[in-house]
Amino acid sequence: MEAAVLRLSHRAERDKRVTTHLGLVARAFGASKLIVTGAKDAHLADSIQRVADSWGGAFNIEFAEGWAPVVAAYKRQGYAVVHLTMYGLPVQKEMQKIRKNRKILVIVGGEKVPFDVYRSADYNIAVTSQPHSEISALAVLLDRFFGGKELEKGFEGWKMKVIPQPCGKKFAEK
Amino acid sequence: MEAAVLRLSHRAERDKRVTTHLGLVARAFGASKLIVTGAKDAHLADSIQRVADSWGGAFNIEFAEGWAPVVAAYKRQGYAVVHLTMYGLPVQKEMQKIRKNRKILVIVGGEKVPFDVYRSADYNIAVTSQPHSEISALAVLLDRFFGGKELEKGFEGWKMKVIPQPCGKKFAEK
Repeated sequence: MEAAVLRLSHRAERDKRVTTHLGLVARAFGASKLIVTGAKDAHLADSIQRVADSWGGAFNIEFAEGWAPVVAAYKRQGYAVVHLTMYGLPVQKEMQKIRKNRKILVIVGGEKVPFDVYRSADYNIAVTSQPHSEISALAVLLDRFFGGKELEKGFEGWKMKVIPQPCGKKFAEK
Repeated sequence: MEAAVLRLSHRAERDKRVTTHLGLVARAFGASKLIVTGAKDAHLADSIQRVADSWGGAFNIEFAEGWAPVVAAYKRQGYAVVHLTMYGLPVQKEMQKIRKNRKILVIVGGEKVPFDVYRSADYNIAVTSQPHSEISALAVLLDRFFGGKELEKGFEGWKMKVIPQPCGKKFAEK
């Protein structure tokens, strides 16, 4: 199972925390890559890359000019395209079908999503049909796609690692 | 099953989007209340309340002076206290125990979480031991706590409602 995430129309100032959180969620929940359209935000790339360097695992962040060539390239590589939108079909009803595709490109919209994104997606998927957050929608989608196994994922080449505790903070460092 | 969410040390300017997302996630994933310590941010309360008014359901936002009296009051009412922290025990291992408590107060930390929060919690819980987002951690915790049933939740008294579509946007309004 393999997932990449495409974030649309990033705005450097206004979206910096939300897109950083999206990148960290993508990494922590087992995706291999974040692709960003909109502002080529070096600070964003740097802060996600620093986490990946310290905490391990293979995760990349890339910038792209437009979403359509990215979608076309991933489709050619056999990825199914899953567009997260509160207007889509319920994740809990569609996940079984989605998981048959072993590789997905997850599109997370920005402020105004062109209708062509809906049309180009193999699945328009809602995580609840209520307004909440693209960050939570991405986490729940990846959690269902990887069947909870991503919660056990090891991150090779870590320099920092948490040793889980019932009460307190414990790190390993190397 | 019943959940309330306590967000610590909200800062009006810096945290406005993150705390708004937390409130919307709490509501969308079936919690009944968001309690906020830190800045008494009228704009935050207003934007979450407006969503609840339009989209339905019973959801409240409250401000509190300090976290400790809130925790004490919820404990007296029989709530188990679940503190979300990347240093805690894995959600997937602890959830069965947590669900035996039918009511939980979920604590979502702010910038610096006092150690007494760890000590006062019945469960210190990590959603992955990796850095990501309090928004995703809250969503996955509530999704596991409510066993996915929250995704089917109806919101009574709605004025707006999405009619799920395979491709496109459809609303009902009354």
